[in-house]
Amino acid sequence: MTTAHHAPAGKAHNARSVAAHLAAVTDLLAPLAAESRAEVVLLPDALGRALVHGILAPLNLPPFANSQMDGYAVRSADIPDGGAELRIMPPIPAGSSPQPLGPGAAAPIMTGAMIPAGADAVVPIEKAVPDHFLPEGDGRVVSLPATAPGTYVRAAGSDIAAGERALAARTCLGPAQLGLLAALGMAEVEVYRTVTVLLVTTGDEVVEPGQALPEGKIYDSNGTLLEAAMTQAGLHVRRAGISTDSPAELQALLRTEGRDTDLIVTTGGVSKGAYEVVRQAMAEQPVDFLHVAMQPGGPQGIGTFDGVPFLGFPGNPVSCLVSFEMFLRPALSALLGAPAPRLPLRARLDLDGHDRQLTSPGSKHQVRRGNLQPDGTVRLEGGESSHLMHALAGSNVLVHIPEGVTELGAGEEVEVWML
Amino acid sequence: MTTAHHAPAGKAHNARSVAAHLAAVTDLLAPLAAESRAEVVLLPDALGRALVHGILAPLNLPPFANSQMDGYAVRSADIPDGGAELRIMPPIPAGSSPQPLGPGAAAPIMTGAMIPAGADAVVPIEKAVPDHFLPEGDGRVVSLPATAPGTYVRAAGSDIAAGERALAARTCLGPAQLGLLAALGMAEVEVYRTVTVLLVTTGDEVVEPGQALPEGKIYDSNGTLLEAAMTQAGLHVRRAGISTDSPAELQALLRTEGRDTDLIVTTGGVSKGAYEVVRQAMAEQPVDFLHVAMQPGGPQGIGTFDGVPFLGFPGNPVSCLVSFEMFLRPALSALLGAPAPRLPLRARLDLDGHDRQLTSPGSKHQVRRGNLQPDGTVRLEGGESSHLMHALAGSNVLVHIPEGVTELGAGEEVEVWML
Repeated sequence: MTTAHHAPAGKAHNARSVAAHLAAVTDLLAPLAAESRAEVVLLPDALGRALVHGILAPLNLPPFANSQMDGYAVRSADIPDGGAELRIMPPIPAGSSPQPLGPGAAAPIMTGAMIPAGADAVVPIEKAVPDHFLPEGDGRVVSLPATAPGTYVRAAGSDIAAGERALAARTCLGPAQLGLLAALGMAEVEVYRTVTVLLVTTGDEVVEPGQALPEGKIYDSNGTLLEAAMTQAGLHVRRAGISTDSPAELQALLRTEGRDTDLIVTTGGVSKGAYEVVRQAMAEQPVDFLHVAMQPGGPQGIGTFDGVPFLGFPGNPVSCLVSFEMFLRPALSALLGAPAPRLPLRARLDLDGHDRQLTSPGSKHQVRRGNLQPDGTVRLEGGESSHLMHALAGSNVLVHIPEGVTELGAGEEVEVWML
Repeated sequence: MTTAHHAPAGKAHNARSVAAHLAAVTDLLAPLAAESRAEVVLLPDALGRALVHGILAPLNLPPFANSQMDGYAVRSADIPDGGAELRIMPPIPAGSSPQPLGPGAAAPIMTGAMIPAGADAVVPIEKAVPDHFLPEGDGRVVSLPATAPGTYVRAAGSDIAAGERALAARTCLGPAQLGLLAALGMAEVEVYRTVTVLLVTTGDEVVEPGQALPEGKIYDSNGTLLEAAMTQAGLHVRRAGISTDSPAELQALLRTEGRDTDLIVTTGGVSKGAYEVVRQAMAEQPVDFLHVAMQPGGPQGIGTFDGVPFLGFPGNPVSCLVSFEMFLRPALSALLGAPAPRLPLRARLDLDGHDRQLTSPGSKHQVRRGNLQPDGTVRLEGGESSHLMHALAGSNVLVHIPEGVTELGAGEEVEVWML
C-alpha cells in the first residue's frame, strides 16, 4: 500500500489522481493474475472470461480448399474462352473426400465441399447449362463458361493458417472468439478462475428493499446496483446484506463471510463524517482512506482486511457505480483481460434542456451520465449529484470531463464509455 | 407466414428485403410477448430481462430532504451576511429521525441524514469554525458563514417524485435500472419468462470440437458461436449437437428435443444445393425457404415445425451470427424489450490496408465486420466472405452497407452496431 492522502473533501489539491488510484487498485489486485488461478473449462463455460495464454492455430482454417458455391468443380485450363462441354463426374457433397478430377471432367460440388485434386475453380450452378444438377447417369455432359483459376475456391488457411496467432493472451472470450476456438477444434480452453467478491452495504440508514421504510431511512440500492454491475462483468458476487454502523459487527461479518473471497467491497462509511463505520472497522488494518480527484466518488478506501484485498466505495449509488467503472472494472480488465475494457468513444455535447454550459470543478475528473444518440451526440441525464438513480437508469454512457476542464459548450467533444 | 421467395442465390431482385424478413420473424415470435409469459422474480434474477409493465415510483426519491454534505443543518435566516455563532445541537446521523431545529441553533448533520424540521440549508464542515465536529457538550457554539436557503439540501422527490414513471414497459433491466427499483423499495419485479431455444447444427461435414478431424470435414463452430451469442442475449439455449444429413434423423431429433422449446434454430441445409437436409426435413411443415437481400446470410428458412416456431439459418458461421443479429435479436428486442437493442452509431470508414473503395452488391444489404476505433473511424476486418471466423473474432462491430449502395470511399460514414 502506498502513502495515504487524507485530503479533506473538497480540497482536491491534496487528492490522488484518478490514474494514480487506478494504479493502486491494479497493484492491490495483481495477485489475481497468477498462473495458479488458471483453470481449464469447456467452451460454453468460458463466455465472458479471458485467455491465460495466447493461442496459435493448431490447423488451417479452412482445413482444406473448399467450394464457396454450389456448382461444378473444374480444371480451369479445360475451358477455353468460348466455354466447353465437360463429362459429369459423381457429385461431391460437403464432408466427403473426393476422387481426383481428371481432364475434361466436371464434378458437381456443394458449398463447403472439398475441391478435388486436379480441380482449381468452381463454376456456380446458375452459370451452367443446364442450370440445375442432373440425376447421376453415364455419359451426361454439362456446358460451362470459361473461369479463372481460384474462382469460388476458399483456399486452405485463407481464414487463418496453422501456426498463426489465433487469439492473444488476455483476450476476453465472446461469441466470435469462442466460435473461432471451436472452428480450430478446441473443446476446452484455459481461462482465469472467476473472481469472487464479498459485497457489503453499510449504514444504519439503509433498509433492504421489500421491508417497511421507517422515517429517516432509505432503501439500499448500492447492493443491487453493484451486484448487477459485477455480475455483468463476470464476477461472482457474495452478498452479505447490510451491516449496521457498529464497527465490531462489521468486522465480525467480514471475518465470517470474507474468508474465501478474492476481494471485499463495502459501500458507505468512508468519508470524513462522525460515524464512518468502515473507517472505524479498518482502524487496525493496513487500509488507506483517501480522496481521489474525482466527482462523484471522491472518498475511497483501499487496503487489505485480514490479508484479503479491500476496496471501500462511498455510500451514494452513483458514486458506487462510478467507483466500480473507474477503478475495479478497468483494473480487472488490465490484469485478467475480462471484463472487456470499455471502448472509449468521442461524442459531441448536446446541452438542450440544460444550462448553456456544462461546468466541472477543474481540480477533479468529473463523471456525468448521459445518453449517446445515433448521431454521435450525447445528452446529459440529470445533474452532477451522486444520488440521482433515476437519471442514471435513463443513461447509456458515462461522460468524462477530465481534470483541468472547467466548462464545455454545446457541440464540444467529450469522451464517453458505453455502459 | 407470407409468400415464399425461392430466388436463386445471387439473383437478389426476387429476394425479400431485410426489413420484410425482420417483420416476418417478429410476427412468428409475437406469441412470446403474451401476458401469460410474465413471471415475478427477485431483482438479482431479473438482470438482462425486461419489464412487462411500466413502473410508477411508489415513493419519493429521496424519500425525505437530506444533507448532501457532512456539516451543520441551519435555518439560513439565522445567519446574516457577516456570519453568526450558533448553539450546537445533538448530532444527526444518517438514518435517524431528528428533532426540529429551533432558532439560533445548528445541528451537526451527516451526508444522507434527514434535514430537521425548521432547517433549510447545510453549511459544510470545512466552512465552519472550528472546521471539525466537537464532542457533545453543553454551551458549545460554532461560527458559520451566511448560506442561501436550499444549499446542500437534496429535496424529497428531487430524483423522482412518487407517482412519476420510473421505468417504461419493456425496459431491459441492467444494473442502474435494478438499482433504481431497489431504491424504490421493490424486492421483486415482473419480467418475461426466459426464451428457450433448441439449437441444432446440421451437416455430414461437421464434427464436434475435441474429436479427430477426418479428411473433408470441418469442426462445428456455428453451435458454439450461436450458443454464446444467444446466452449473452439472455436466451436459454438447449444444444442438440450435430444432426446428420438424414432428414428422418433430423425430424426425430427435433421431435424429441424441441417439445418444450419456444423456438427451434438450425444452421445449414437451407440453400439450393442437392443435399439440403433442413429443407428436406421441413418438406411437410409450413416452412418457407427464401432468399433475403442480405450478404452474408441470404438463404433463410422460417415457419413452424410441429407448431414450434422455426428459423433455419445458413451454414457458414458469419452468416449465422449475422442472421442472429439482424433478425432474431432485433425481433426479441422489439417484442420483449430484452435483449436491449443494439445502439446504431455512425462511423467513418478507414480503408487502410484494403482497396481504396469498399464495394457492395447494390441489390443487397451487406453486413461487414470491423473494428470501431475511439476516434470514430471503423476499420474493416477481413473480406466479405462468410467463412472468415478469425476476422470476425477480431471485430467489435457489424458494419452496414444498405441496399442501393455499391461503393464507399475512405472517410465516408457508415452505420455500425457494437457487438
